[in-house]
Amino acid sequence: MGIVVQKFGGTSVGTIDRIKNVAKIVTKTKEQGNQVVVVVSAMGDSTDDLLDMAHQITSTPSSRELDMLLTTGEQVSISLLAMALQEIGFSAISFTGWQAGVKTESVHSKARITDISSERIVQELKNDKIVIVAGFQGVSEEGEITTLGRGGSDTSAVALAAALKADLCEIYTDVDGVYTTDPRIEPKAKKLKEVSFDEMLELANLGAVVLHPRAVENAKKFGVHLVVRSSLVQVEGTVIKEEHGMEHVKVVTGVAYDMDVARVQVIGLENKINALSDLFSTLAKEKVNVDMIVTSDYGEDKINVSFSITSSDLQHTLAILERYVGSCTMISHEDHLAKVSIVGAGMISNPGVAAKMFEVLSNADIPIKMVTTSEIKVSCLVPKEYAISGVQELHRSFELDHE
Amino acid sequence: MGIVVQKFGGTSVGTIDRIKNVAKIVTKTKEQGNQVVVVVSAMGDSTDDLLDMAHQITSTPSSRELDMLLTTGEQVSISLLAMALQEIGFSAISFTGWQAGVKTESVHSKARITDISSERIVQELKNDKIVIVAGFQGVSEEGEITTLGRGGSDTSAVALAAALKADLCEIYTDVDGVYTTDPRIEPKAKKLKEVSFDEMLELANLGAVVLHPRAVENAKKFGVHLVVRSSLVQVEGTVIKEEHGMEHVKVVTGVAYDMDVARVQVIGLENKINALSDLFSTLAKEKVNVDMIVTSDYGEDKINVSFSITSSDLQHTLAILERYVGSCTMISHEDHLAKVSIVGAGMISNPGVAAKMFEVLSNADIPIKMVTTSEIKVSCLVPKEYAISGVQELHRSFELDHE
Repeated sequence: MGIVVQKFGGTSVGTIDRIKNVAKIVTKTKEQGNQVVVVVSAMGDSTDDLLDMAHQITSTPSSRELDMLLTTGEQVSISLLAMALQEIGFSAISFTGWQAGVKTESVHSKARITDISSERIVQELKNDKIVIVAGFQGVSEEGEITTLGRGGSDTSAVALAAALKADLCEIYTDVDGVYTTDPRIEPKAKKLKEVSFDEMLELANLGAVVLHPRAVENAKKFGVHLVVRSSLVQVEGTVIKEEHGMEHVKVVTGVAYDMDVARVQVIGLENKINALSDLFSTLAKEKVNVDMIVTSDYGEDKINVSFSITSSDLQHTLAILERYVGSCTMISHEDHLAKVSIVGAGMISNPGVAAKMFEVLSNADIPIKMVTTSEIKVSCLVPKEYAISGVQELHRSFELDHE
Repeated sequence: MGIVVQKFGGTSVGTIDRIKNVAKIVTKTKEQGNQVVVVVSAMGDSTDDLLDMAHQITSTPSSRELDMLLTTGEQVSISLLAMALQEIGFSAISFTGWQAGVKTESVHSKARITDISSERIVQELKNDKIVIVAGFQGVSEEGEITTLGRGGSDTSAVALAAALKADLCEIYTDVDGVYTTDPRIEPKAKKLKEVSFDEMLELANLGAVVLHPRAVENAKKFGVHLVVRSSLVQVEGTVIKEEHGMEHVKVVTGVAYDMDVARVQVIGLENKINALSDLFSTLAKEKVNVDMIVTSDYGEDKINVSFSITSSDLQHTLAILERYVGSCTMISHEDHLAKVSIVGAGMISNPGVAAKMFEVLSNADIPIKMVTTSEIKVSCLVPKEYAISGVQELHRSFELDHE
């Protein structure tokens, strides 16, 4: 008995039959006596179809007009879902982003939500209606239609849950929860009953994409009670919550990986005060996303800088770095690497976790090319061909295949 | 050098290539030094596609949610046209109905425009932008997305032209103007250089659909200078204006027809004070559109009532009329009729036009089943098989095949 926000992604509303299925899930929650707000994405491939039309006109559509175009996708799904609910006898009303009061910054294609004026939603919930809100979209102060960028519907759902002080925010997706690792490469992977916000953030950033990091951050910030579950099968999902609310905190919760990583080393770079900021702001300006960074001394007044990037950025990065030839001894690179990471909120109070990880990999004869650690994560760069066996060994050694 | 509103229908923006073609037409007007506002409909079949999805969910979609669904159609076309204009180097900005300030009544699927708050459009015109507005749609006082019903984009264009005090409102369509009759059945039909608002209203209502009657009414009311022309070929269109502004007023301007008409006769109806209102309000309640109505006396205290309806409404109408069995002598009907009409603003000051029409039809051995007249129109119901020859005879006899 409370307010429940339910979010359904593009796959979950990909066909008319799936929309009818979503309607059934929603009514179940409603019949349990809850007030229900539903956030939906655009139907399956419809965003791609719209983008395709735009690209038949121009290779560089303006982001304002692209937002105008793409936001029609969710507007189609919300109206169809409202019809599906009405057809089976429930009162429902759909709202676009601007109607739902989702206020954003005045930028296009990646606006942040600044505020939600939820009066209309609250009123319609009081009228006993199921309220359906278009995800991914909002409106700027100037009355411009904006979008929230990748994972935007997750962000919409969490922001609405926070604004409405919802008791629960359920993210329905095509997987049934968060796993200890990717079940496709380790069949013994177990679904986690619960995971902390911080762990989820690390897992999401590490490629185990179930929820957009921005949505997780906002859920953590506003204390939104999140659940990830499947819209296709009826099983319990994974609860994402504050660590201190969890029943028992494991040392290691999951093993994540990222398969397409390259490493670049700038060896013997002059150790000027702005050497690092100069290097990485140059890369940032050129839109290169740098992940792991490790520095070390290299003789007097010189340093080594190693960093990892996505493989597809390698040639572009090497081209940018040509301007550093002369101010360093050598630039080297290595492709076909993978990042394997262990994540766990209990790590911080358990010394020796990183050491155990190195030992597991070493016993399996897996060479470690680079290491970074945070309070709840240890990541190792290894040759790609060892990545899967590394994940499996770590999963077994940290006993993630046990309940 | 002024403000020009240009409206393009669904066929004119039916494909990406046609949208690019529309962009070219628009830029030509812009390059002549005008401020240009463009009103567009949804792309070709897209409305049908959306309706089809709705009907896979329910046979009775709520009109609110249907408006929510259908208005995405124009939102797609406005953004694509803006991109097409930007791609060829013009500044353009698209607006949905609510962004353009198109205020309507609080009803769905057939709202009337109550007001246009044109500040944003005026501002962007001052910024030297081509402004593109989604036709057919508006927003109610409560912030609900509404649609204007059939021919809605024509209405949007005329209302915007009135609000902006535009110098010209050009309606681009797939025909190149208004003709003396349908060129498909009379190859000698001539395109009219100009036609009065009232004549256009009669022609539109009579099936020669080029412009929606509501748009014509509004254009007349607000003195909007209208032109109908083709988006596919570059020729002069037809100007629609006040009769007193026309160069020379013809007695008969055009011959219209409607092919699927049935006649119903209620014979010997008791002539009570409310007999007619009772009969026709019953039919109206059941959504039967009655067109021509003729009454005559039938002995003492009884009347005959004859009226014409669309053929497809005949069975439904007869079923409704069963309740009148007993209060009249007989109910008869005749299907497979057609209505042939002559229209002309000069008719009112030229007695004998109706007589000449009857004479033309009679000389061609065409039986006349029913007649109605107005100040600028005479309509005759004739058997369907005579309709085309009737139109051709009238067209020739009133010399519409001459310049």
